Amino acid sequence: MLDSLFNPKSVAVIGASTKELSIGNRVLKNLVDFGFKGDIYPVNPKADEVRGIKAYKSILDVPADSIDVVHMVIPAKFVPQAFEDCGQKGVKNVIINSGGFSEIGPAGEAIEKAFLEVARRYGMRVLGPNCQGIINSDPQCRAYCNFTFTMPEPGFISIVALSGGVAEVIHQGFAAMGVGTRIYASNGNACDITIPEILRYLGDDEKTRVVVTYVEGLRDPQGFMQAITEVAAKKPVLAMKAGRTREGAQAAASHTGGLAKEDLATDLIFKKAGVLSFTDEGQLIRAAAAFATQPMPAGNRVGIITNTGGPAVIATDVLVAAGLEIPPLSEKTAAFLKERLYPEASVHNPADVLATGTAAHYRACLDAMMADDNFDAVLVNFVTPFFVDTDSIAREIVAVNQLRRKPIVCNLMTDTRQWTETVRILKEGQVPCFALPSDAARALAALADYRRLRSRKIGESRRFDDVDRAAAAEILAAAREAGRTVLAANEVYGILEAYRLPLPAWEMADDAAAAATAADKIGYPVVVKADAERIVHKSDMGAVALNLTDAAAVRRAAEQMGRRLGAADLRFFVQQYLPGGREVILGAKAESDLGHLIMFGMGGVYVEVLKDVVFNLTPVTPTEAREMIAAIKLAPLLAGVRGEKGVDRAVLAELIQRLSQLVGDLPQIRELDLNPTLAFENGAYVVDARISL
Amino acid sequence: MLDSLFNPKSVAVIGASTKELSIGNRVLKNLVDFGFKGDIYPVNPKADEVRGIKAYKSILDVPADSIDVVHMVIPAKFVPQAFEDCGQKGVKNVIINSGGFSEIGPAGEAIEKAFLEVARRYGMRVLGPNCQGIINSDPQCRAYCNFTFTMPEPGFISIVALSGGVAEVIHQGFAAMGVGTRIYASNGNACDITIPEILRYLGDDEKTRVVVTYVEGLRDPQGFMQAITEVAAKKPVLAMKAGRTREGAQAAASHTGGLAKEDLATDLIFKKAGVLSFTDEGQLIRAAAAFATQPMPAGNRVGIITNTGGPAVIATDVLVAAGLEIPPLSEKTAAFLKERLYPEASVHNPADVLATGTAAHYRACLDAMMADDNFDAVLVNFVTPFFVDTDSIAREIVAVNQLRRKPIVCNLMTDTRQWTETVRILKEGQVPCFALPSDAARALAALADYRRLRSRKIGESRRFDDVDRAAAAEILAAAREAGRTVLAANEVYGILEAYRLPLPAWEMADDAAAAATAADKIGYPVVVKADAERIVHKSDMGAVALNLTDAAAVRRAAEQMGRRLGAADLRFFVQQYLPGGREVILGAKAESDLGHLIMFGMGGVYVEVLKDVVFNLTPVTPTEAREMIAAIKLAPLLAGVRGEKGVDRAVLAELIQRLSQLVGDLPQIRELDLNPTLAFENGAYVVDARISL
Repeated sequence: MLDSLFNPKSVAVIGASTKELSIGNRVLKNLVDFGFKGDIYPVNPKADEVRGIKAYKSILDVPADSIDVVHMVIPAKFVPQAFEDCGQKGVKNVIINSGGFSEIGPAGEAIEKAFLEVARRYGMRVLGPNCQGIINSDPQCRAYCNFTFTMPEPGFISIVALSGGVAEVIHQGFAAMGVGTRIYASNGNACDITIPEILRYLGDDEKTRVVVTYVEGLRDPQGFMQAITEVAAKKPVLAMKAGRTREGAQAAASHTGGLAKEDLATDLIFKKAGVLSFTDEGQLIRAAAAFATQPMPAGNRVGIITNTGGPAVIATDVLVAAGLEIPPLSEKTAAFLKERLYPEASVHNPADVLATGTAAHYRACLDAMMADDNFDAVLVNFVTPFFVDTDSIAREIVAVNQLRRKPIVCNLMTDTRQWTETVRILKEGQVPCFALPSDAARALAALADYRRLRSRKIGESRRFDDVDRAAAAEILAAAREAGRTVLAANEVYGILEAYRLPLPAWEMADDAAAAATAADKIGYPVVVKADAERIVHKSDMGAVALNLTDAAAVRRAAEQMGRRLGAADLRFFVQQYLPGGREVILGAKAESDLGHLIMFGMGGVYVEVLKDVVFNLTPVTPTEAREMIAAIKLAPLLAGVRGEKGVDRAVLAELIQRLSQLVGDLPQIRELDLNPTLAFENGAYVVDARISL
Repeated sequence: MLDSLFNPKSVAVIGASTKELSIGNRVLKNLVDFGFKGDIYPVNPKADEVRGIKAYKSILDVPADSIDVVHMVIPAKFVPQAFEDCGQKGVKNVIINSGGFSEIGPAGEAIEKAFLEVARRYGMRVLGPNCQGIINSDPQCRAYCNFTFTMPEPGFISIVALSGGVAEVIHQGFAAMGVGTRIYASNGNACDITIPEILRYLGDDEKTRVVVTYVEGLRDPQGFMQAITEVAAKKPVLAMKAGRTREGAQAAASHTGGLAKEDLATDLIFKKAGVLSFTDEGQLIRAAAAFATQPMPAGNRVGIITNTGGPAVIATDVLVAAGLEIPPLSEKTAAFLKERLYPEASVHNPADVLATGTAAHYRACLDAMMADDNFDAVLVNFVTPFFVDTDSIAREIVAVNQLRRKPIVCNLMTDTRQWTETVRILKEGQVPCFALPSDAARALAALADYRRLRSRKIGESRRFDDVDRAAAAEILAAAREAGRTVLAANEVYGILEAYRLPLPAWEMADDAAAAATAADKIGYPVVVKADAERIVHKSDMGAVALNLTDAAAVRRAAEQMGRRLGAADLRFFVQQYLPGGREVILGAKAESDLGHLIMFGMGGVYVEVLKDVVFNLTPVTPTEAREMIAAIKLAPLLAGVRGEKGVDRAVLAELIQRLSQLVGDLPQIRELDLNPTLAFENGAYVVDARISL
């Protein structure tokens, strides 16, 4: 559908300018310099030609039946009329490079609305406004519909982002590494063609092997998630999210006009979608270079070949820290190499062929590690001493690389201005090369991370049929009717019971005497909590009395709370007291347009001190629930350490899933906290809870 | 002292070769290509000239009274005789590039010993063997006494490392960035001239502004620490340690012949010495580039100027995550900029001058942030649109940079092949430029880290005079005499008492009856622990009975232990029982040649689950002791959270210092654990302890 945009046969420029330093000139220059294979039509009412190309007074004068792409580089106020002309001419896509639209406020928004109406009427698509445009490096097309300056070689990586600044930084990063780009798209205000649409197009584009994207905030999280999940199922998607800190989010809001907030959801979307996420653009760029040409490793075990010691030590450190393994050579491999390398060579992993190591030595190591089932990938450290034939070494690396048996990354340590032929051989042979050992190791680690991410089957969420959705919905409706956004204790517990969340026995009581009666009924010991709308942090307000062992104590506690708190709507919540247990916390929080975030973590002081909590997006599957429990820092405490018994993690996992279903069924819930929940060797109980709408 | 090596007036090459691909030829080529300002003397018994330079049959034939540097590129067996000749000739320094010495085993070691004897006799110094050599880029010298291939521009950064591979990677990294190198030294086997000596030389070298070093393991930790502390007091030292993982340490051992061990001490040396330590060579390289030309910031507050949104968001994230601040503009600064920037520009921090922003706009922002006391440093994001005069922008950045009021780093996003003039202006103006926003931000963060590190005064260690060193030493001597390496409980507690480490009241008892009597004397409740040499993990072996409240209970517990454990040397340790308290752990471990490592952390399951411990080298100063207590993850628990009282951190700090003094006074102690130590609101007590020799 977007093919006429990304693979245009003809490009016109409305606002083609004879001034060198204008975008209306630069776009033409870029099309010509990049060798566009289609037709180019400058449109300029005053010039006969622009940059030596015949110009037309109006788009309507262009001698073509239809035009695939029109650049508009004219003041905003003229744009709606230009769209009318384009519509009549049969233009398929318009790229608006100029600004002056929704990003400047209501006046610009009105213009945007006006030209969009025209576009829809004629079935035209719009990229931008206020955007860079697209690039397609396919030798059959070579469309540089963009005013930037990085001319990519053909490649396998496509880049898409709203932010032209960062997309261009990534693009420059590839160019500086000598890595090609397949398609580049930056859509600025994105008034029509969206990032999800472009993502889908790149997913379908056979020549795109890897998709790279950068986001600051999401306009349509659900649509983005659907699109990126579909694309990630087809090919690797590498993504970076910025605006991670409060200050970063503010900076992002100030240039995108978005909402400044710290954002957990985007990372969770990436994880759920199977997208590999980065926090460093350099690591993303270098990883993409490896993804572009290398097969995925079958596992985590890396063989290292080097001709210099230290860089292999660094690579080893980085790989191991990233969770990869550096297994020893098998006896067979060691014997094979002993025969082939110098006697002083180090026949271990890393295998050190020495600075004087030859092409045959490198080849022997490569062959051995490709054949040895103990290795899933190979990292080559390669310094280029003047006294060895480095071109031949490069050729052997390329020969093995082209078999694509296992991924190879190369830490090429050279002066690229002197060792041009060695560099060329490796580049043409599609060996991803990195100047620094850490960078090579991290690129390889990204391949392994991706394998882990994609081989993780999160499964389907489980649907609990024993819940009473209607009863819970009724409680919520009643509260809403009464104008309350914070639910009373009996409402909260009613909803939890409807979803079969395990609770200690409980009763509500209107006064101290009734509390004592309720306690008698429940059995001792009990807890008494004061309940009133304004009492939010119960413990801090002295509204909780624990471990009361008889009716007199209950009565006394309730009377004291009554005197101290004296709220008109004060009631007492009486509950069975459960001594011991491990305090955990569960929670749910509505995320606009994305369902809810589900939280799990250690309770009590650990929430604050260690921030030992993890999140997931609803619906949480059984696998994800188990992963959440295993992912917190204090997870070993839940599993049991040093003779201490662990807790019932199966019940906790079910609790997480029931909570996920609860907020999924009742999206009007804004926040729900099950804090604390006490986990025991057998069973777990929600001891206190809050729900707000 | 090493000046004749690093600043030679004459260089001879013994083993000068006519073969292009030999080191004996390459060293000459490098000297010539680099423009060595001194005299060059090839020595070759068979050739009249090498690379067009007159050659001599023997070093003795060289027409010079003395020679500063001789390269030896001859087989190992000829080296001792060559040294004899050099000695007679009055050679000052010998660089042995060849291998075949101690790195290959005893035969090579013997040769090394032989030539060293000659060198000492004549007062010659030796770099290497098995090393690359040195480079001095000073325009007055231009000595490339090295067979590598990276020709540096003159610069301010000096590099020293045993590992030529990594030193060269770092060197290449500077060259690729267009950053100069001052002195380069890689000394391979380091049989004579050591890394500490070279470090000291670089410390005294006025033209070296920054010292960069890489280590895998330390041969002489004490000497290294002394040297690096001295140098770091004079100028920034940036260091990287590899072999951090077990596998990495093995890889290091295999190429250096060193000992494979995970190594905490090196990082602690760096910290104590005030050396900025890195785990990523790329970050080290980029940080050094900033250190080379920028003043140190006075604080953590960064102003950001950009002409494109996204990269400033990324930079903000990285800076904030690294602990820096992005304060808002002061009203005055905002007003100043409002008048000078485009109306659509974002007058915040980051300040966005827009892609169309001019040199005047950048200058206004730079001036404002330099003048505004709210900022300690400035990060400039600078993309180079074709439609603005980027050269002028570069010139303004340079003009402000040259005032050296506050550090500036620049994230220059361009195609360096097209924007050559802009790049040149910034480079000549000594503005550190980085292609990626994260990299620029991290380099700036390193400056701030360094300021923090250097402004931290660790002070002197405190000497406690109330200790009884003699008593403790006597106990140790007796144990050693008896051939025991694990001390008995009464010995351990005797030593702790001698150093006034606070203990609960305790008694030793030989049998159950005596235990009950001891308990009566101490007062209840008590703890009874079985004590015998083979009982190491008491709790796991059922050798501890807690909270015994009367004599009968004590007797019963002791009898049961006697039956169950039945050791011949079994005795009972009876101790006052202290309920409650926070479990912490203190420990000391001998580090060869470096005193001891002192450990502090949360005790119990947290040691295992969170590895929540920190280390320091003896002697631990009061400041360091406080820092250790504040540095653990669960430190807020010790300070007190959410109404829970904190513990007596002053007493814990004293405990750490007394422990430090104890092992400092008694270095024969191999390991000492005070585990657990219970910390209370007032006071702390060592509840169990172990000492081994």
